Amino acid sequence: MTNIALDIMGGDFAPDCNIQGAFDALNADKDIRLLLVGPASVIKDKTSDWPEELKSRIETVEADEIIECDESPVSAVRHKKNSTITVGANIVKEGRAGAFISAGSSGAVLAAGQLIVGRLPGVKRPPLASMIPTAKGFSLFLDLGANVDAKAEWLCQFARMGSIYMEKVQHKASPSVKLVNLGVEEEKGNALTKEANAMLSQIPEINYEGFIESRDVIMGEADVIVADAFTGNAILKTMEGTLGFVMQVLKSVLKSGLLTKLAALMIMKPLKLKLKEFSASEQGGAMLLGLNGLVMKCHGNASRKDIANGILKSAGFIREDVCGLIREAFAKENSQNNTVE
Amino acid sequence: MTNIALDIMGGDFAPDCNIQGAFDALNADKDIRLLLVGPASVIKDKTSDWPEELKSRIETVEADEIIECDESPVSAVRHKKNSTITVGANIVKEGRAGAFISAGSSGAVLAAGQLIVGRLPGVKRPPLASMIPTAKGFSLFLDLGANVDAKAEWLCQFARMGSIYMEKVQHKASPSVKLVNLGVEEEKGNALTKEANAMLSQIPEINYEGFIESRDVIMGEADVIVADAFTGNAILKTMEGTLGFVMQVLKSVLKSGLLTKLAALMIMKPLKLKLKEFSASEQGGAMLLGLNGLVMKCHGNASRKDIANGILKSAGFIREDVCGLIREAFAKENSQNNTVE
Repeated sequence: MTNIALDIMGGDFAPDCNIQGAFDALNADKDIRLLLVGPASVIKDKTSDWPEELKSRIETVEADEIIECDESPVSAVRHKKNSTITVGANIVKEGRAGAFISAGSSGAVLAAGQLIVGRLPGVKRPPLASMIPTAKGFSLFLDLGANVDAKAEWLCQFARMGSIYMEKVQHKASPSVKLVNLGVEEEKGNALTKEANAMLSQIPEINYEGFIESRDVIMGEADVIVADAFTGNAILKTMEGTLGFVMQVLKSVLKSGLLTKLAALMIMKPLKLKLKEFSASEQGGAMLLGLNGLVMKCHGNASRKDIANGILKSAGFIREDVCGLIREAFAKENSQNNTVE
Repeated sequence: MTNIALDIMGGDFAPDCNIQGAFDALNADKDIRLLLVGPASVIKDKTSDWPEELKSRIETVEADEIIECDESPVSAVRHKKNSTITVGANIVKEGRAGAFISAGSSGAVLAAGQLIVGRLPGVKRPPLASMIPTAKGFSLFLDLGANVDAKAEWLCQFARMGSIYMEKVQHKASPSVKLVNLGVEEEKGNALTKEANAMLSQIPEINYEGFIESRDVIMGEADVIVADAFTGNAILKTMEGTLGFVMQVLKSVLKSGLLTKLAALMIMKPLKLKLKEFSASEQGGAMLLGLNGLVMKCHGNASRKDIANGILKSAGFIREDVCGLIREAFAKENSQNNTVE
């Protein structure tokens, strides 16, 4: 059995979407066992009509506090001992599950991952990584916001962890790696990207192909795309904002006249279908890599499908033993630098 | 007369688009006088059929070398003394024109601005600023790539220069200023944005409104949007890449069936018109602010219209004496820090 802990109370549509997503995932994969983290009364109520077979694969873990998005993450994780996020992270720390999934406060999920689950030996910083949709399929993009003021050696570790994930879980042989930069010429960049570029090209374990400009990220010009957290976050959010804006413009055009209104009726359905393809839902949430287990953060507005896919993708992560592979790869790293500065 | 120097040979469609843009701008604004920089024979040939009145407002400045995009910018500017970019920058330095416009090598234009035209007293770094189209109109976005590894005090100067431009040239009273960050909460950010945020809120001359997330840049949530060059460049290029990608997706949808093909015929014209609005053409190119004159870099694929608008916008910049206002605002700055490090 693959054991996965799920925060029942995190996200805008909790607990219903979370419970429904759990139901779908348990049906889709008979080797998954879920530890549902939240108030026992809510879980009992929401799963009361489930088939016995599904009920036999869930365990209720009582947690009656919720960390709100406006709370200070570190302080909340430390003091709200009975919050779903703190309890869920502890389940992974204790080895009772290989992954913890939450759609709750991003800051608290990241903090719980680092403070409770903890880093694998040799890992300097755990990056937040996400499979992003591109013109060519999907790329793993990291770091999306976990570690600001990055050092070049952290970026090198991100590249190695990302390569392991793409190869093992996404079955991409010799995944290409690129580093986000101002331009693709070697002499361009800031101090960080110049130093990281030189270091990345010396790592035999990865297939490093040099710089990528941010405009080419969405074109899928590499399997693993590495950036510092500030830049990665800026690019991801700019993509989101631009897509949202274009949809606004398009809607206004489609409604601007009688003929285009008729055309709109014809186009909207295939367009929505196409844009659904361009959605990260099927790939699960963002993953904090390099910890003693997987911590996955689903979007705050995660749907039933998002939660289900998060669970299914986490199962793949656990079964391929990505944590074990990262542990092995980083075993010889200098652990003296392995401290929070 | 407002004197403006124009690089005739820079850009993918030079010299024809450049000459045609000059023609349009001279017709649109009778108080503009252009110094056309390039091979005299080309200029003579291309303007031979112009009306005498227009000819009376151009001056040919011989420059028979071109700096290619793959040349090292600093070295090219220093050694190709007779290149259009070097000659054009010298025209501004000598006070023969208030602005120099080029669609040639970005690196060389930036280098010529800094090395030849030179900074105003007290200005620590000249940012590259551009009017970007947003859901609400236009915002001034800077720095878009001139100064990597920025310091907080540079960002403060960018905010002040940008505010002067928006107020004087774009006639926006008390323009709002925001700083790009990971999140809008005060405790979020990297070392640079945290320091800059604290400093910006202490500047009485500007209307600073705190952080902006990159997803809201395109929504036009501030008149002046400040970022370090690496982040600014990443956001701008991500917008470009995402827009390009969406157009690809949309075209594939519109062509996917007979009905949608018919719909496409109806929709493409209004859509293209709408997207044309979402184009920076009318606002001219990117401006290097804080120099002893304006240096404007037009896109490499600048059209006739882009060049004409660049000239017209430059005239506004000169007439409002933006350089004089920046000189005045920064006169009391500590000039000891005013060195290239």
